[in-house]
Amino acid sequence: MTTVAILGATGYTAVELIKILLRHPQTRITALTSREDTRPISAVHQSLAGQIDLPLENLTPQEIARQAECVFCCLPHIASAKVVPELLKYGAKVIDLGADYRLDSAETFETWYGEKHPDPARLGKVPYGLPELFRSKIACAGLVANPGCYPTSVILPLAPLLQSDWIEPADIVIDSKSGVSGAGRTPKQTTLYPECNENISAYGVGTHRHLPEIEQILSAGSGKSVKVIFTPHLVPMDRGILSVTYSKPAKAANQDELLAVLREFYRNEPFVQVVGHLPGTKDVSGTNFVHITVRITGGRVITISVIDNLVKGASGAAVQNFNLMFGYPETTALV
Amino acid sequence: MTTVAILGATGYTAVELIKILLRHPQTRITALTSREDTRPISAVHQSLAGQIDLPLENLTPQEIARQAECVFCCLPHIASAKVVPELLKYGAKVIDLGADYRLDSAETFETWYGEKHPDPARLGKVPYGLPELFRSKIACAGLVANPGCYPTSVILPLAPLLQSDWIEPADIVIDSKSGVSGAGRTPKQTTLYPECNENISAYGVGTHRHLPEIEQILSAGSGKSVKVIFTPHLVPMDRGILSVTYSKPAKAANQDELLAVLREFYRNEPFVQVVGHLPGTKDVSGTNFVHITVRITGGRVITISVIDNLVKGASGAAVQNFNLMFGYPETTALV
Amino acid sequence: MTTVAILGATGYTAVELIKILLRHPQTRITALTSREDTRPISAVHQSLAGQIDLPLENLTPQEIARQAECVFCCLPHIASAKVVPELLKYGAKVIDLGADYRLDSAETFETWYGEKHPDPARLGKVPYGLPELFRSKIACAGLVANPGCYPTSVILPLAPLLQSDWIEPADIVIDSKSGVSGAGRTPKQTTLYPECNENISAYGVGTHRHLPEIEQILSAGSGKSVKVIFTPHLVPMDRGILSVTYSKPAKAANQDELLAVLREFYRNEPFVQVVGHLPGTKDVSGTNFVHITVRITGGRVITISVIDNLVKGASGAAVQNFNLMFGYPETTALV
Amino acid sequence: MTTVAILGATGYTAVELIKILLRHPQTRITALTSREDTRPISAVHQSLAGQIDLPLENLTPQEIARQAECVFCCLPHIASAKVVPELLKYGAKVIDLGADYRLDSAETFETWYGEKHPDPARLGKVPYGLPELFRSKIACAGLVANPGCYPTSVILPLAPLLQSDWIEPADIVIDSKSGVSGAGRTPKQTTLYPECNENISAYGVGTHRHLPEIEQILSAGSGKSVKVIFTPHLVPMDRGILSVTYSKPAKAANQDELLAVLREFYRNEPFVQVVGHLPGTKDVSGTNFVHITVRITGGRVITISVIDNLVKGASGAAVQNFNLMFGYPETTALV
Repeated sequence: MTTVAILGATGYTAVELIKILLRHPQTRITALTSREDTRPISAVHQSLAGQIDLPLENLTPQEIARQAECVFCCLPHIASAKVVPELLKYGAKVIDLGADYRLDSAETFETWYGEKHPDPARLGKVPYGLPELFRSKIACAGLVANPGCYPTSVILPLAPLLQSDWIEPADIVIDSKSGVSGAGRTPKQTTLYPECNENISAYGVGTHRHLPEIEQILSAGSGKSVKVIFTPHLVPMDRGILSVTYSKPAKAANQDELLAVLREFYRNEPFVQVVGHLPGTKDVSGTNFVHITVRITGGRVITISVIDNLVKGASGAAVQNFNLMFGYPETTALV
Repeated sequence: MTTVAILGATGYTAVELIKILLRHPQTRITALTSREDTRPISAVHQSLAGQIDLPLENLTPQEIARQAECVFCCLPHIASAKVVPELLKYGAKVIDLGADYRLDSAETFETWYGEKHPDPARLGKVPYGLPELFRSKIACAGLVANPGCYPTSVILPLAPLLQSDWIEPADIVIDSKSGVSGAGRTPKQTTLYPECNENISAYGVGTHRHLPEIEQILSAGSGKSVKVIFTPHLVPMDRGILSVTYSKPAKAANQDELLAVLREFYRNEPFVQVVGHLPGTKDVSGTNFVHITVRITGGRVITISVIDNLVKGASGAAVQNFNLMFGYPETTALV
Repeated sequence: MTTVAILGATGYTAVELIKILLRHPQTRITALTSREDTRPISAVHQSLAGQIDLPLENLTPQEIARQAECVFCCLPHIASAKVVPELLKYGAKVIDLGADYRLDSAETFETWYGEKHPDPARLGKVPYGLPELFRSKIACAGLVANPGCYPTSVILPLAPLLQSDWIEPADIVIDSKSGVSGAGRTPKQTTLYPECNENISAYGVGTHRHLPEIEQILSAGSGKSVKVIFTPHLVPMDRGILSVTYSKPAKAANQDELLAVLREFYRNEPFVQVVGHLPGTKDVSGTNFVHITVRITGGRVITISVIDNLVKGASGAAVQNFNLMFGYPETTALV
Repeated sequence: MTTVAILGATGYTAVELIKILLRHPQTRITALTSREDTRPISAVHQSLAGQIDLPLENLTPQEIARQAECVFCCLPHIASAKVVPELLKYGAKVIDLGADYRLDSAETFETWYGEKHPDPARLGKVPYGLPELFRSKIACAGLVANPGCYPTSVILPLAPLLQSDWIEPADIVIDSKSGVSGAGRTPKQTTLYPECNENISAYGVGTHRHLPEIEQILSAGSGKSVKVIFTPHLVPMDRGILSVTYSKPAKAANQDELLAVLREFYRNEPFVQVVGHLPGTKDVSGTNFVHITVRITGGRVITISVIDNLVKGASGAAVQNFNLMFGYPETTALV
């Protein structure tokens, strides 16, 4: 039995995480924090009525570490890196669902996030929480940087093709589409129902903070300088990400060969399905699965992948990492 | 040619009103106000790009009345009643799309809106802007109280049946369903896309402010004390209201007779269609039409009616009233 | 370990059932049938990719009973009653998710379904699969009639109030709203995306086949002749039912008393939550929970309840019944 | 006054066309056809209740041409080309909203549509109905090929950049997203509400029939061999297309220059708005407008454009062509 705490428990990522952890036979949620809200968690998320009745609390890192062996941080960027050092000092293991420990360089962080990193010494030493690529490092880590939702959807299809030299690392076009839950639960005019419904729009063209994360992980994995053009879109649905990538073949290839490369790469992975058909986000809704396919047309390699942004793109991946870090079967609470 | 101003031009009602007025061959929009925003209106509503480029301004009633013969108030309650007296004094005609002049009694207003009415002397003298019932009064008014969206959807089917004694005035159950645009454009957690999508919920059970408005208009029209139970719902769609009413027949009736009563009552109305089938909100989406039908089952008279809450439920009705007040054909800009 | 078969595995109810059963540690799906389709089930439901690869087969009742100890029938009405007698004869237990065994009388069946019942002798002897009301009968049954989705949402809030004489049995108005998955997966113009999206409409006013089912179960439970007016609506969402009922108090009552009555009645039920707030369908989406509240306003008792029509309204309830019939903990695979 | 007929009046394109034509002060709809349906048009499209009561008829080309000076064909491919020769012979002008006369070559048609073209002699002589590029040819034509919805959204942003050599003609990636109404009103499992809602998926990757249309028009306009990779997606919304194109600059360029090129090119166009912000489909919903912007990032030129697929992508464009062909102001009934 492992005790766990969730910091920043009022958002969509947190409620998804709570629901998954409630299904986990060997964890007990002992603390939920919020800086301002002190209601019971089931008043904040009505769907938890009757299932958990912890109140939200504003706790210090020391108090949190006393109550929980594992801490899930669902905090805005910068906020995580301000409490993580103390949580670690007081003996907790930490899974950060935010962006603070994903990038290896404090300079890159400052460029893209516009603020100095509060804990720069740790950058570059924290495993990136994508078990399919970094399982062994995650298993023995005290702190794991849970991946961004878009990067997960993009890295999984591209990494195998880059590592075995099937596609060129330069000039990869990524066109991603996400449900609105990815934009968070803080009231904003741009995510009101009547703004998003019956509407699709691109945003953050060339400026989205997941771009350097994608380039860093794909470059490190392939030993090449991977460069991408990344266009995210907001789609009128709750959850789900569909990512389409367009790259140039680095050698003669046909579709079946590339499908076979992916199938071989992921043949033992419990959550990655390489499929022949064109997947839709609904195929993986509410699950920790990734469905991936590949096409060749017009002299381009096209990968198409789908995840649930709140599960494999956030809280499911976090529990997958948790299972690895605490020695539970990796799929516990996730299938 | 009539000059018009819109007060509170940043919301959903206002943008709908602007679009209708841009199609009106005999009006010119001369002023758009906001207390805080000073951007061009097309920056606030991207759908207006290239069609109108007035900036938002914070103007006094006198300045507004100098620029516009007719003023449409799309302001929160209380706010309208604070400026309307001056607008009238300086010679403008006013159509108030808010709630301030709908109720006849300052006491009732205070009970339901929780604040003292700023202009109580005028209450009871302002025509209720439902042309199908109050056309002649509207035509010669200087100030018109545009109806609430739910009341429009409910009063139109019930008024004829009450006036000719087909149904009992007591104990009418009204179950209404509305799209989310009715909740306005101010950021709130409850109207975020991920809260409303894939969700239907009742709200304001027994406490919604449109309840006394419905009872007042139906009572006045029928000379009876009409009492209703009113349950509104939020439905995952942008626009549209479907209202179902359940009442007891006051005399033996069959369905065809009641359909005939409604058809006869509305036979010359350009915007009311009495239909034999069960209408859906999409049938009237983007239009000023009301579709109404009636059923008798289980010893109850059931009316079903649909409107677009932003058009017949707000801005379309406002332009219908405008046309009456300024002598234009009633359907101008509305078909 | 129990072997199970699903008849009519191509629809929405069946795919939900498969997903729940795949999480059940003590069942094994051994057969999936379709009269026409012979593809692997994961080709019919892409979301099952990698999780189950049984093909669809057109099997005789005898073959089915040889492969499965429990048979879930997801067939159209009449079709179930044609195979159930043989399934039982060959030793299988059966849970019928269709309507064939819900009504007690062959005459009532013929009136509402328009065809003679193929197995009239069994009517009146088959337990209605609502464990909250009929747990002990279900536990020892060989055939269970899984309730209709609307009836589940309506019976659970009303039964306790009727049984303890808090509300009048006559003249209960039920206004229900359902997501579109309830209409099935067979292509129809009325359930195309562009017909349902941005649209809410009533259908089957006074003629929906769940009406006699509601009246029968409520009457039997309370010993009174319960009469209802029932209006279902199609709402633009995948799943979820919200039912609002309007009834007359049979004795002086206040809201807190009625909430207490419901809380007491369901205090040991794992899936029924009586809540103080107004619940939305999203609160129970993807779960087997029912959330219920009650209000008193305008001299009427109003109950509001939400379920997921595919889970508590169909496949979740079926597995709840299965657990009871085969001696597994009732919540297995459902929390 | 011009008399018009609509062939194939049961679909989404036709109902949109009828609504636009009802607003046109100088047209009269005299015939509506269907091969099988003989109901009044308002029974087929409930939203037309009270506005038009023509019945559907199965008429010969000669009968149609006798009743209408202009015929709008909303027929499946091949079907148009079978009746158009006769319609022209009997003196009608024709606007074909289908695909039969868009491609210049019968071979290309056969390759992509899988059937021999019934009227090959006319191919290559029919103006492509995009007034922004082919206004003068349209104005004097007897037959116009109304563009495909995706091509309209793609050609308008790219044509000016290709014609003035700002971007390379090879290897243009087009990632388009469409609402579901584009898939038509014929019942199909793939477009049922529960299949499309909460789902985004790519389809027709490399095989969509609009691909050769895009290449043909862009090549002809620029005098270069334009090659595109085209990936359409189905998005959970009724209407709207967002197209994002990724191309390589052919010479040094900055964003402002490219915006200026587009603004200059379209400076007199009533329906094309070149905007600085990132447009969403909702900005043009229900209108004949196109909103276009351009970005440069990662060494790529990115254009983003939005249309309403049923209006500028089909019926609005058709009426724009009609206005040109019959000498009415081009924006009549469209603003």
